[in-house]
Amino acid sequence: MLLSMPIPPEILKRKIVARSRLFRVEQLDLRFSNGVERIYERLVSAGYGAVVVVPINRAGEVVLICEYGGGSNSYQWGLPKGAVDPGEDRLAAANRELQEEAGYGARQLTFLKSVHLTPSYMQRSVDIVLAQDLYEQSLPGDEPEPMEVMTWPLDELSSLLARDDVSDSLSISALYIARDYLNGLAQ
Amino acid sequence: MLLSMPIPPEILKRKIVARSRLFRVEQLDLRFSNGVERIYERLVSAGYGAVVVVPINRAGEVVLICEYGGGSNSYQWGLPKGAVDPGEDRLAAANRELQEEAGYGARQLTFLKSVHLTPSYMQRSVDIVLAQDLYEQSLPGDEPEPMEVMTWPLDELSSLLARDDVSDSLSISALYIARDYLNGLAQ
Repeated sequence: MLLSMPIPPEILKRKIVARSRLFRVEQLDLRFSNGVERIYERLVSAGYGAVVVVPINRAGEVVLICEYGGGSNSYQWGLPKGAVDPGEDRLAAANRELQEEAGYGARQLTFLKSVHLTPSYMQRSVDIVLAQDLYEQSLPGDEPEPMEVMTWPLDELSSLLARDDVSDSLSISALYIARDYLNGLAQ
Repeated sequence: MLLSMPIPPEILKRKIVARSRLFRVEQLDLRFSNGVERIYERLVSAGYGAVVVVPINRAGEVVLICEYGGGSNSYQWGLPKGAVDPGEDRLAAANRELQEEAGYGARQLTFLKSVHLTPSYMQRSVDIVLAQDLYEQSLPGDEPEPMEVMTWPLDELSSLLARDDVSDSLSISALYIARDYLNGLAQ
């Protein structure tokens, strides 16, 4: 692979072209290795990273939360997730979000993989963290309302995904990656 | 489930607070059913929808493309995807993107599921389309450079995901959803 790795485009210029309370849009003026020039835009991320947590209990069930999504304007079942705080490592952030959103702490936390919501136009990557050896423990969060929590067998993801209120591709990819990891350990 | 469906927050006010060539940020002033008021922001989507295509050849391999992502500033392997054009249905859009980006057409196209990159702050949903019975067929696209194409066995996703240049959670979730669908048919 190393010999055939493509040459990344040269970034001729970068500037912030729009910003709001949460978002900053950066324009990239690019020259590709074949000489073609293009203007791209991306969402740049402030902060210290983000985590999504796959909490698995002793029964092999995943702990899911139901949260209002402002993007979809609907309630969706998915995994606990959130931003890493200053000075916090990703495993600590995962354990904190798990306690704030789902009411569990975890004695065992394992980093699995970093993914992008989309590498096309979002700079931020999200670290997938597997949480095991759970215990009941709540921390106050910044959520506007308490979240519903349910458990679902990790080996029945197909029936979970048949639901219209399960549509978060980040949660879906994290669930499958965790299932593959655990199945690999079990073999 | 119907009886316990949460009551969505009331949208007190909506306004566009930032815009660029590609993005529009909408502010939502919300009142949750418990009376708590919050200000959310989301990216609103113009256009007619979006598709991501899972092309599977006769050997049971998925066709992947390598594309520069402005968000990650790196080349990433993933699935063909793009916006639906005016007047186009999602299956036609999937077949067009497949021809533009991967050099294949498909005689069999199956809608599998709609997902969100994240329901938290992105309005747009993306339709996952399975493409089968492939034939070689290219259409000129708007890409700045030709894309590399490779095939990968669909039953070896774990080794694919071990790569650092495979990080798109939309592609990852679509791959697993397609694999589950095809495994279900095979049983």
